[in-house]
Amino acid sequence: MSPSNPVLSHHISSQFNEDLQDVHTKFMSMGGLVEQQVANAIHALLDTDANLAMDVQFKDNTVNQLERDIDEGLTLILARRHPAAIDLRMVIAMSKANTDLERIGDEAAKIARIAQNLCEEGESPRGYMETRHIGNQVRVMIHDALDAFARLDVDQALKVVMADGDIDREYQSATRTLMTYMMEDPRHISRVINVMWVLRSLERIGDHSRNISEQVIYMAKGRDVRHTSIEEIEQTVHRK
Amino acid sequence: MSPSNPVLSHHISSQFNEDLQDVHTKFMSMGGLVEQQVANAIHALLDTDANLAMDVQFKDNTVNQLERDIDEGLTLILARRHPAAIDLRMVIAMSKANTDLERIGDEAAKIARIAQNLCEEGESPRGYMETRHIGNQVRVMIHDALDAFARLDVDQALKVVMADGDIDREYQSATRTLMTYMMEDPRHISRVINVMWVLRSLERIGDHSRNISEQVIYMAKGRDVRHTSIEEIEQTVHRK
Repeated sequence: MSPSNPVLSHHISSQFNEDLQDVHTKFMSMGGLVEQQVANAIHALLDTDANLAMDVQFKDNTVNQLERDIDEGLTLILARRHPAAIDLRMVIAMSKANTDLERIGDEAAKIARIAQNLCEEGESPRGYMETRHIGNQVRVMIHDALDAFARLDVDQALKVVMADGDIDREYQSATRTLMTYMMEDPRHISRVINVMWVLRSLERIGDHSRNISEQVIYMAKGRDVRHTSIEEIEQTVHRK
Repeated sequence: MSPSNPVLSHHISSQFNEDLQDVHTKFMSMGGLVEQQVANAIHALLDTDANLAMDVQFKDNTVNQLERDIDEGLTLILARRHPAAIDLRMVIAMSKANTDLERIGDEAAKIARIAQNLCEEGESPRGYMETRHIGNQVRVMIHDALDAFARLDVDQALKVVMADGDIDREYQSATRTLMTYMMEDPRHISRVINVMWVLRSLERIGDHSRNISEQVIYMAKGRDVRHTSIEEIEQTVHRK
């Protein structure tokens, strides 16, 4: 964990700090694993690597186990340490973001399952350029959201929230392109639909990264910015 | 709220009870609203009712606001009342299930948006029989999950978890049928794809109902049954 995290550094050597640090470390390593799962799932699809696709599906169990461990750790902190103010917000933010990380892991496993099927069928379908492009953007979003979480960096969090709008627009445009491919050549409908599911998963991963970033802003600023406008979020971030 | 809820009836007339009761009441009314949103979204689609479709999209704001209110109430309880044991589990379960309710609301709004587009295009596409059938099952699941939550009824919760398996199978089969429709008549690809998105949303609503039911089991039994087998969940439910 970054030593600059202002929440964790103010509890010097208390038992509370040890407990919170422990869960925070698990949370960050779950984040790293999930980020890797998404990268590998996209890689497996684009490079038709069936072994890697199987590996991603298998490792989803580890992600699920980490989700349970982290929630258990957070519940123990609530029961024994009665955190208040920013500490409590950190516990709540980790609990919410934990759910998002697990869902990102689920979407990676879904992409990997499709990758495996497409490997078995052979021959790569159209729509991979779109997948590569949106996939890269979404990977950056997860990375930045986790980095913002580790450093309580609200500016970085705001960047992720804004990037989600771009993903949504590019997703819409890619979906239209894929629809054209299907109409041009109906023999490939089934394979193109699989690529559509992948794009949908990537778009959802973007949403979850945004959710994690909103939790960073909640932790740091004490304000719930979910379901508010970009302008309102910007104001919250820039408030001293 | 049901007077038989065993968590809420053991805190007689304390301030804690009032706070918890207040959030619980909000949670249950959010549940009722979300249930209605799903019913109306499906109704708008199948009966090509554009006004109802717009109403569902508009009311999603109310769902979002309730999510924020409930989380705020739960955070205040954690900060001021330091709940322990089953009370703490109830707070955590409501926090997790609150996210699921909001996501169900989102899926209802997505269905309503598609319904509105299809109304504007006129002429109902194929695949509505599948939508009606899965839609009815999913509505029963939400209803039963909320009922189990209100009464802390683990048997009912188990029933919902088991129903989710059926939905997944029927969703797979309906998707294959829709794929055949597209190949038979590629002119309708775009409209059939919209029906596919609706089915996907319904399948996700089934997942969220299952999640809520798993939280009921966690509250009542103190055991996190997420990502475990049906057999393990059955054993937990039947343990005295």
